[in-house]
Amino acid sequence: MNSINTRLAALREVMKKTGLAAYIIPSTDPHQSEYVNDYWKIRTYFSDFTGSAGTLVVTLNEVALWVDSRYFLQVTKQCKDSEVTLFKQSIPHAPEHIPWLCDVLENNDTVGVDYRQFSKSQIDYLVENAEEKNIQIKNDATLIDSIWQDRPQLPTNQVAHQPIEFSGQSTQDKLQKIQAQITKEQADYYLISSLDEIAWLYNIRAHDVDFTPLVISYALVGRKESYLFCNKNRFNDTLLKTLKNDHITVIDYDALAEELPILTEGKTIITDPSSLNYSCFDAIKGTFIYQKSLVKELKAIKNNVEIANAKKCMEKDGVAMTQFFMWLESELQLREISEYEIGRKLDGFRQQQAHYKGESFSAIVSYKNNGAIIHYTAPKEGSAMVKNDGLLLIDSGAQYQNGTTDVTRTVFLGDTATEDEKKSFTLVLKGYITLETIQFPKGTVGMQLDSFSRMHLWKQGLNFGHGTGHGIGSYGMVHEDAQGFASSMTTSRGSEVHKENQFTTIEPGFYKEGAYGIRTENVVISYVKQTTSYGDFIGFEPITLFPIDTRLIDFKLMTSEEMDWLNSYHKKVLDTLSPILNATETTWLTEKCKPV
Amino acid sequence: MNSINTRLAALREVMKKTGLAAYIIPSTDPHQSEYVNDYWKIRTYFSDFTGSAGTLVVTLNEVALWVDSRYFLQVTKQCKDSEVTLFKQSIPHAPEHIPWLCDVLENNDTVGVDYRQFSKSQIDYLVENAEEKNIQIKNDATLIDSIWQDRPQLPTNQVAHQPIEFSGQSTQDKLQKIQAQITKEQADYYLISSLDEIAWLYNIRAHDVDFTPLVISYALVGRKESYLFCNKNRFNDTLLKTLKNDHITVIDYDALAEELPILTEGKTIITDPSSLNYSCFDAIKGTFIYQKSLVKELKAIKNNVEIANAKKCMEKDGVAMTQFFMWLESELQLREISEYEIGRKLDGFRQQQAHYKGESFSAIVSYKNNGAIIHYTAPKEGSAMVKNDGLLLIDSGAQYQNGTTDVTRTVFLGDTATEDEKKSFTLVLKGYITLETIQFPKGTVGMQLDSFSRMHLWKQGLNFGHGTGHGIGSYGMVHEDAQGFASSMTTSRGSEVHKENQFTTIEPGFYKEGAYGIRTENVVISYVKQTTSYGDFIGFEPITLFPIDTRLIDFKLMTSEEMDWLNSYHKKVLDTLSPILNATETTWLTEKCKPV
Repeated sequence: MNSINTRLAALREVMKKTGLAAYIIPSTDPHQSEYVNDYWKIRTYFSDFTGSAGTLVVTLNEVALWVDSRYFLQVTKQCKDSEVTLFKQSIPHAPEHIPWLCDVLENNDTVGVDYRQFSKSQIDYLVENAEEKNIQIKNDATLIDSIWQDRPQLPTNQVAHQPIEFSGQSTQDKLQKIQAQITKEQADYYLISSLDEIAWLYNIRAHDVDFTPLVISYALVGRKESYLFCNKNRFNDTLLKTLKNDHITVIDYDALAEELPILTEGKTIITDPSSLNYSCFDAIKGTFIYQKSLVKELKAIKNNVEIANAKKCMEKDGVAMTQFFMWLESELQLREISEYEIGRKLDGFRQQQAHYKGESFSAIVSYKNNGAIIHYTAPKEGSAMVKNDGLLLIDSGAQYQNGTTDVTRTVFLGDTATEDEKKSFTLVLKGYITLETIQFPKGTVGMQLDSFSRMHLWKQGLNFGHGTGHGIGSYGMVHEDAQGFASSMTTSRGSEVHKENQFTTIEPGFYKEGAYGIRTENVVISYVKQTTSYGDFIGFEPITLFPIDTRLIDFKLMTSEEMDWLNSYHKKVLDTLSPILNATETTWLTEKCKPV
Repeated sequence: MNSINTRLAALREVMKKTGLAAYIIPSTDPHQSEYVNDYWKIRTYFSDFTGSAGTLVVTLNEVALWVDSRYFLQVTKQCKDSEVTLFKQSIPHAPEHIPWLCDVLENNDTVGVDYRQFSKSQIDYLVENAEEKNIQIKNDATLIDSIWQDRPQLPTNQVAHQPIEFSGQSTQDKLQKIQAQITKEQADYYLISSLDEIAWLYNIRAHDVDFTPLVISYALVGRKESYLFCNKNRFNDTLLKTLKNDHITVIDYDALAEELPILTEGKTIITDPSSLNYSCFDAIKGTFIYQKSLVKELKAIKNNVEIANAKKCMEKDGVAMTQFFMWLESELQLREISEYEIGRKLDGFRQQQAHYKGESFSAIVSYKNNGAIIHYTAPKEGSAMVKNDGLLLIDSGAQYQNGTTDVTRTVFLGDTATEDEKKSFTLVLKGYITLETIQFPKGTVGMQLDSFSRMHLWKQGLNFGHGTGHGIGSYGMVHEDAQGFASSMTTSRGSEVHKENQFTTIEPGFYKEGAYGIRTENVVISYVKQTTSYGDFIGFEPITLFPIDTRLIDFKLMTSEEMDWLNSYHKKVLDTLSPILNATETTWLTEKCKPV
């Protein structure tokens, strides 16, 4: 019996003792975070699956891991020795496990959950589905502790202030917008549980969750006095004073359950039911006004300081990428290198850049057939050895104090790519160019744009199984829950309107199982490209700076407009980076950026 | 005071007497029909507005006509002398008037409605919005009768059987599918109030509503015995016998309110809350199972007999269009002709075709600046005089017993079109070709495809304010509530999946206010174009047969693939039509279809 099955057996023991027919383990924390602190990696503890999205549903007979198509191969690999069974979601992030669970359960069964890991909307949906069979929902915040003996502790590191030279807007200015909304709605408080919203609003950063500079906390914004629920000893005096000047009182994180009912009794609280955890909802004594998060909306529009900083980050990232790929090319002449080492080396080059704070996600370095595993992570031990031959996909990014990066390049190693590899690469590139160069009327949402990145693949009977892009933060989340490109309205990437001054990735791909993976990704800024009597038309400008591997392009498939785009992008890369590169590096980059 | 204001004054008198602060008048009938019988043209009676979509909300101070952008100009024209004020819907068919109304009303006010004109979903939405101010909803089915003295009567014409040579599927076969669903859901009945669903299911036709061969009725399908609520004297003995053989009993339409509670007491009834009117909902004594209409889903997929018949109809329509445009060209050399006369003449040519039953909608013949009024109807008296000069847009179609047609062509009259006219026409044509030639994976919905028809206009800062296409029936509704192309999920055209063997129109346009309107529209059949390891890919084949005016094409803007498409489409038109045209007609068509 392997360790996962042992853990599952322990869980089932407790389930039987406490009368639970099922227990639901989502991938998130009390703040609906995408990346979570080790303390909240419960799903990984019970399944070995490390992907950033997926829900484990444990019944007395089944262990169902629900993931979307990005993770099908990964689950098959990571869970192959345990009882965990792959359940395929047809729509990413859709709670398809709930109807399934209610179907397999008997009348009057009880389902266990930890309310902190579920939003109000999620519990509402569960209750609604459970009604027909009178299935009961039982909240238990200590059940996991009783099984997970060596569970990690929550972080205690110091919280840092994000200065105005990087944030571009004072906390006071930001608070005023929220307070105006509180006044407008005749409410008393605005309660925020999303960590990236709190970090943005209070201009604070820490490293409490993987890859993201966030502070585990809650924020309660009042008309004048506001609160930050986070352990006080994590702040130095200067920062405490700064917060006090903005009328923000710091209260211990664990005091929330006690303080919230007192602070909110008889009051009216605005909150976003899609992010507020059900435990908070349960604790509040006042009246709710449910609204889509205003902070999310404000945060998605970047100010001029953030834009200028992001462009600087892209330059630093371009320099690191240049140095890294130069190293890779020459080193591969001498030896084989593991995927894992390649990822560490790339990070090493980024570490030399100013304001570097860490990776913005677990870099994907996937060689040949591993490239077809969309969210592949090369294991520390035994990852594939990369030779000077075939396709290598590298999707990586960093957190700098002045911005967040995310870039994917697929390169060909060796002499000549096959016709099939070139065709696939070119169809993906054409999709990237079509979406990046389109302009569209104000009010257009991601789902109306996503197909532009797929049309060239579709024409050949091909497709890819993930969204085409996401919002990205300013020294914040690499995946902002905001605008993007997706083929359904179930996520904000499909349903949100693209507005000017937003950062979004464009990242179409193509994956041939057992053979290779291809993806090309840049971050773009949106802006008003044209104004006519038919309104404002929004378009994109790429800010990521690194050449596209022209050896992988089948020029026969490219239109002259697409060739012009390529040459003009490469000119921009070269013109921007060469002043900050040394002579050898400039020579190398000039060759990569030469007109075709 | 004009007649509309007089009528509105009478309505307000009754409203005051009965304690109503507002009265809502939708454009529909008890069957949620798009085109309605004269009896139900209440909104037109109180506003003069004749468009097929729009809601009039009368309060004691305001007369708000809510329409989408297709009708902005039309409302301005038709309502200019009355109190009626244009309210612009930002999303077509969205009930944006409800939040507005609840906002302008006072606490505890009462809103009047006729339950028959509202679906269950619509009343639910109204109640939900009215709750905060404790606004009451009052049903009154006789209020309008008391004001509208000469209100028309409901139809009494004979109901016809649609034989299997046209329907392609027996009533029994169709009923079996519904009955299988009833059994599966452990229900007793399936209640249908949509007229086009009833006509399809029972294979019956009449002409009870404008432009559409429908029978005003309700259908209650049982596990074995079924019912048709429609006046018995409208059926001949043969048809009654045919229905009886299929275990369908005919009961008077007006007996519904009395019979429904008896038939359904203690029973379980499946119905679609988006089409079932609230009056029926109120009358039923049993338990409901709400489901998206299964009939709608079955009807949208055409069988081989329907497909073969549709292709025959397109040939007939192509012949009529050829004869008409030949006549128009030569007649314009002699005289000016009114838009209205042109519409009648086109219908005259169609009338000579086999199985002709009538127009499928009010033909749009709009000359020069009238073309910019998207749903323009040329008035009988005083419509614009068409000369041999400028752009003429004609959107028309017919009901034949073996199919329904809908085609739009924009032609240039005179010597040479301007560069601007040619550019606009070409951008629209490129949009048509892009959407018609795309292929996409199974599961794709209209909203993912709609932008393909707009991308070329968007690139020039241009756009058009309507959806890009709709499902179309087989001797049924010209606008089927099914798949299509739209920029939002609020209608089925955006939200429904495209499947093989569906009929859909593709009809992008461009409208320059005060100058001209351009639209190009064909009906297409969907089919599986390619199957790969990435799944089935659906595409379209055009079945409408009439040339596109090449004198309006700016060939500089066309790609070689687009030129190939044009030549191949014209070859198909010529090859298909010339065997059934006379020599003169063939010569004329050969010239119009000659390769470019």
